[in-house]
Amino acid sequence: MDDSMKVAVLYGIHDIRIEERPVPRPAPDEVLIRVSSVGTCGSDVHYYEHGRIGDFVVEQPLVLGHEPSGVVVDRGKDAHRHEIGARVALEPGVACSVCAECKAGRYNLCPRMRFFGTPPVDGAFCEYVVLREDFAHPIPDALSDDAGGLLEPLSVGVWASRKSRIAPGSRVLITGAGPIGLVATQTARAFGASEVVVTDVNPRRLRVAGELGATGTIDVSREGLDGFTPDVLLECSGVPGAAAQAIRSVGRAGRVVLIGMGGDEIPLPLAHVQNFEIEVTGTFRYANTWPTAIALAASGEVDLDRLVTHRFGLDEVERALTVASKDDSVIKAVVRA
Amino acid sequence: MDDSMKVAVLYGIHDIRIEERPVPRPAPDEVLIRVSSVGTCGSDVHYYEHGRIGDFVVEQPLVLGHEPSGVVVDRGKDAHRHEIGARVALEPGVACSVCAECKAGRYNLCPRMRFFGTPPVDGAFCEYVVLREDFAHPIPDALSDDAGGLLEPLSVGVWASRKSRIAPGSRVLITGAGPIGLVATQTARAFGASEVVVTDVNPRRLRVAGELGATGTIDVSREGLDGFTPDVLLECSGVPGAAAQAIRSVGRAGRVVLIGMGGDEIPLPLAHVQNFEIEVTGTFRYANTWPTAIALAASGEVDLDRLVTHRFGLDEVERALTVASKDDSVIKAVVRA
Amino acid sequence: MDDSMKVAVLYGIHDIRIEERPVPRPAPDEVLIRVSSVGTCGSDVHYYEHGRIGDFVVEQPLVLGHEPSGVVVDRGKDAHRHEIGARVALEPGVACSVCAECKAGRYNLCPRMRFFGTPPVDGAFCEYVVLREDFAHPIPDALSDDAGGLLEPLSVGVWASRKSRIAPGSRVLITGAGPIGLVATQTARAFGASEVVVTDVNPRRLRVAGELGATGTIDVSREGLDGFTPDVLLECSGVPGAAAQAIRSVGRAGRVVLIGMGGDEIPLPLAHVQNFEIEVTGTFRYANTWPTAIALAASGEVDLDRLVTHRFGLDEVERALTVASKDDSVIKAVVRA
Amino acid sequence: MDDSMKVAVLYGIHDIRIEERPVPRPAPDEVLIRVSSVGTCGSDVHYYEHGRIGDFVVEQPLVLGHEPSGVVVDRGKDAHRHEIGARVALEPGVACSVCAECKAGRYNLCPRMRFFGTPPVDGAFCEYVVLREDFAHPIPDALSDDAGGLLEPLSVGVWASRKSRIAPGSRVLITGAGPIGLVATQTARAFGASEVVVTDVNPRRLRVAGELGATGTIDVSREGLDGFTPDVLLECSGVPGAAAQAIRSVGRAGRVVLIGMGGDEIPLPLAHVQNFEIEVTGTFRYANTWPTAIALAASGEVDLDRLVTHRFGLDEVERALTVASKDDSVIKAVVRA
Repeated sequence: MDDSMKVAVLYGIHDIRIEERPVPRPAPDEVLIRVSSVGTCGSDVHYYEHGRIGDFVVEQPLVLGHEPSGVVVDRGKDAHRHEIGARVALEPGVACSVCAECKAGRYNLCPRMRFFGTPPVDGAFCEYVVLREDFAHPIPDALSDDAGGLLEPLSVGVWASRKSRIAPGSRVLITGAGPIGLVATQTARAFGASEVVVTDVNPRRLRVAGELGATGTIDVSREGLDGFTPDVLLECSGVPGAAAQAIRSVGRAGRVVLIGMGGDEIPLPLAHVQNFEIEVTGTFRYANTWPTAIALAASGEVDLDRLVTHRFGLDEVERALTVASKDDSVIKAVVRA
Repeated sequence: MDDSMKVAVLYGIHDIRIEERPVPRPAPDEVLIRVSSVGTCGSDVHYYEHGRIGDFVVEQPLVLGHEPSGVVVDRGKDAHRHEIGARVALEPGVACSVCAECKAGRYNLCPRMRFFGTPPVDGAFCEYVVLREDFAHPIPDALSDDAGGLLEPLSVGVWASRKSRIAPGSRVLITGAGPIGLVATQTARAFGASEVVVTDVNPRRLRVAGELGATGTIDVSREGLDGFTPDVLLECSGVPGAAAQAIRSVGRAGRVVLIGMGGDEIPLPLAHVQNFEIEVTGTFRYANTWPTAIALAASGEVDLDRLVTHRFGLDEVERALTVASKDDSVIKAVVRA
Repeated sequence: MDDSMKVAVLYGIHDIRIEERPVPRPAPDEVLIRVSSVGTCGSDVHYYEHGRIGDFVVEQPLVLGHEPSGVVVDRGKDAHRHEIGARVALEPGVACSVCAECKAGRYNLCPRMRFFGTPPVDGAFCEYVVLREDFAHPIPDALSDDAGGLLEPLSVGVWASRKSRIAPGSRVLITGAGPIGLVATQTARAFGASEVVVTDVNPRRLRVAGELGATGTIDVSREGLDGFTPDVLLECSGVPGAAAQAIRSVGRAGRVVLIGMGGDEIPLPLAHVQNFEIEVTGTFRYANTWPTAIALAASGEVDLDRLVTHRFGLDEVERALTVASKDDSVIKAVVRA
Repeated sequence: MDDSMKVAVLYGIHDIRIEERPVPRPAPDEVLIRVSSVGTCGSDVHYYEHGRIGDFVVEQPLVLGHEPSGVVVDRGKDAHRHEIGARVALEPGVACSVCAECKAGRYNLCPRMRFFGTPPVDGAFCEYVVLREDFAHPIPDALSDDAGGLLEPLSVGVWASRKSRIAPGSRVLITGAGPIGLVATQTARAFGASEVVVTDVNPRRLRVAGELGATGTIDVSREGLDGFTPDVLLECSGVPGAAAQAIRSVGRAGRVVLIGMGGDEIPLPLAHVQNFEIEVTGTFRYANTWPTAIALAASGEVDLDRLVTHRFGLDEVERALTVASKDDSVIKAVVRA
């Protein structure tokens, strides 16, 4: 194993530098992982372009990247779950495991969560990372390295599908056909939804949604939802006005999960929420989703490789984020470390 | 039994007239009930003052009143549940029982619901009403006639407490100490809540909240919530800004039930709802609550008589609604038919 | 329309006679249906062979058959849901809709349920039946008449899958590959189960289970479950000893649904149920399942026609039940009226 | 602080010896606690008399006692939750926090759980114990030391009441008025149950049940349940025949929680469980119950001191267990360390 490694470090807005750093050493309950593939996420782009997301501000050099897969190359003395050489997907947030939220099974709400690529915790745009062994998940041979990393956004879709109680017979509306909308389309189908209608203003993305299982697609720049009354809305656009309008389409006892970020407030249509007793919630990451995500990807019910449109080397992280930001043919750009 | 009866009819804004009408005859599955007591509700006042509530417009003469108790005086040929002479509380909305919502146990969301005192369905400010027998609920001797009628607002509190999953240990914030806030205070305690903090700007109402089980009260015209982090918010004020602010106080995995009506939209704080995965919903009336409400009132866990501050005769409906609207010493005015 | 019709009537054990009876007339809220296809069920066979099932005793002539599809040929004056000529599946139990169970959405537990082919209520082995219109469900063109009838056993599988909370990632054990086991295999997959292992002692049935989506099959006359630890057990064998043994295989926080009937008591392994906090329940028919069953059958996720191995005419009901009882190549025999 | 301490050690059946042992030292995330009070439990008695419970066999000297309260006297370097001098209740099972069960919020099902007084883990019949700080819970001044220890059995009642979804209006049957039945009586009331009927064969215990909130008591040596149809059965007797009979009394959609241990199998009445869709489960200890238990005891809704009938010194553990076993006037004997 090497002593030092290459790392892509965000120093400020539009300023990522490739550096050498010592390879980290695993703590007793950690594994050391040679990174294979890391998906780029909208939040990586946002930190790169704005230096912050809401209250999370990049105040010191930060390594981005939280959709990694890799290979276990070393392990701490108490880490016995994974063999050296095992291919693993990394669940990129390490919870404290002992607070009230963790003990209640909601470790995603742990106030002491340390999450990759979120200030001040470094992420995976580098050659090696350490991770508590219980957050590394073995991936079957059927999954590519890229798919291993993209289990992270898939987990977002699994979590939202659980929260919204999608089941056979459900009619689902998904607003926004970006990467999250496209995994949500697939998880909605995998949870049994009979109808999955996806909206966007980008015809190319809507076409992909159709390929991935949407039973209907609507280009909302050209037409309305007319008449579709979903049981479930998975809001993936992050556009407050669109979210509010979509909520008004939801039928009685429907569920709304707000996944897309953007805007401070959503104007909640009170009478509709009351008269139809609609449940509205948001998702914050996910908990206990990797085993399910792995099962869905391994069985072919969800196709993650289809989402990968662009690949870059670790030296090219800056370019990857720029392209992901500017080029609307990108669905998912991955960095191969 | 009489052939004709006295009825208080709303003809338009600020125009209620006492009329004689024929006593209705029960259909085969209905009972005829001699009305004893009818609570006045904010919605009665609103129809009286504005002639409409949202999309519900008073377009023809309407009898208000949907919080009645009474005595069974006759029954249709297939109605066997109640003996003549039985004291009953009236659940004032009759669902179709055969639509998808009804069959799913959510009959409050029945699109064909016929609800007392909601255009174009007449209510109970009169001497006799008919009701499908399964919506009449026997009331024990321990309950007064007034309490029998006030099982209706109590049901709102029971429903909201169920929806919000209040249980022993819950910390509950109730915004607004009007009649609904005051029943919600009591149901929250009956469901086991360990802390119930009630806010209002009316010190008299806050005092009553304290008598009825609130563990804390806050006059929000003078002080803030400082530091109370509820698991559950029961929003009973109907003030959008107050609702939004209260939502921001709710802790991780908390539940918000929007009960108060008023305003078209509530500015939902997106990041808070997402980061804390707060569930927000509204209530529309109630379903299957009377047996529970009766049990709570009969055992003394909930005190409904304490809410009655003013009493009027059937001839005085107009005055009752006026006083209820203008006099802030009114908690609940009842009409004795 | 005809005035009289042919009916197959059970007079006693091994005594079914074909009779002429008047065609029934629909009540105001009913439709008259010309029967197309009726599946035969194990309970039909049981009544035919034993004259009773538990407390249900055939004390007067009884028409069996509760898995029918048909065509609407007339309707009562208040029945507006279905057009004349519409193909419908019949949900064969009509609940009272007004008792506490019905109003809670559990109409399958209605104590006044009138269920086809269950003493003293006649079933569908005849040319015409009447049904309350809300229990008739339109079936899409994609479904055959036989499949329309077999939505009834499919509903059993849907209900059990709901009760057991099967979802993506679930590992499911199904004991018994009879008709119910085979629909349950398919619903388990449609609800997202990642592993569905089916046991039986009949290799032919296990082969069909494999065709219909089982990820594993075990001939328990020859081998054990070794090592499979399901999250969910759908017990379809009705053999108490097998049920008890299967329960012992269920993992922590697992769910067991007892669907198969047979035997008075199941020896529940107390320590296992406690130490693993296993939830055990049974199903009694179903509620609100037809729309989901139709969606699953119409999309091809569930194949009902594959279950039909034998077809008989209405004159041959006796032979159909005899063959269904004796010939173990029968999966599902249907009667074409 | 002392270097050595007194410990009551079980060497074999009917063989407890008082020894000196070194005071343990807290690990970094642990606190050292001076034990104040330890309740004796039926399982302590069982180990003392039989040397085993099921698969758990006392193969080496073992310290019993798992219902302790105490005072924090030292803490590891990373333990910051409790101040020195804080009175705490000890949740006596330390879960691994990183397995699938723990992460799902079901840490009571953790296969690596280390539970006080369960072979081979020592318990609290001694002067000092160490405990991971997150399993120590601060107790308010209102609670006595004995009550602090008895939060453990109270947690059993809280857990069972949660599992059975007791709420206002619930009708609850509790079979067995031993210590667990008596805490369950109180938690059932605290969760809002309207009726709580308790059965036993010991009139003295039934009298205590009445004092603690039972709305009815039945001496089943003399009379039957006649006609009471509970929604919820909390089985605390551990007598298989009584359990089976009680299950038969449960109403439609009822819930049964098997808490009492004893006997290998319970003869589950299949038709009743199916026809009424009754849910049967067992409890294994508890998870996330201490905060609720503390709230209930502190508010006076649950009276734990009332259960304490006998007190012994640490030198008298053997006598305490003997008396608890033989003297049926004992409800709860506590050991004051």
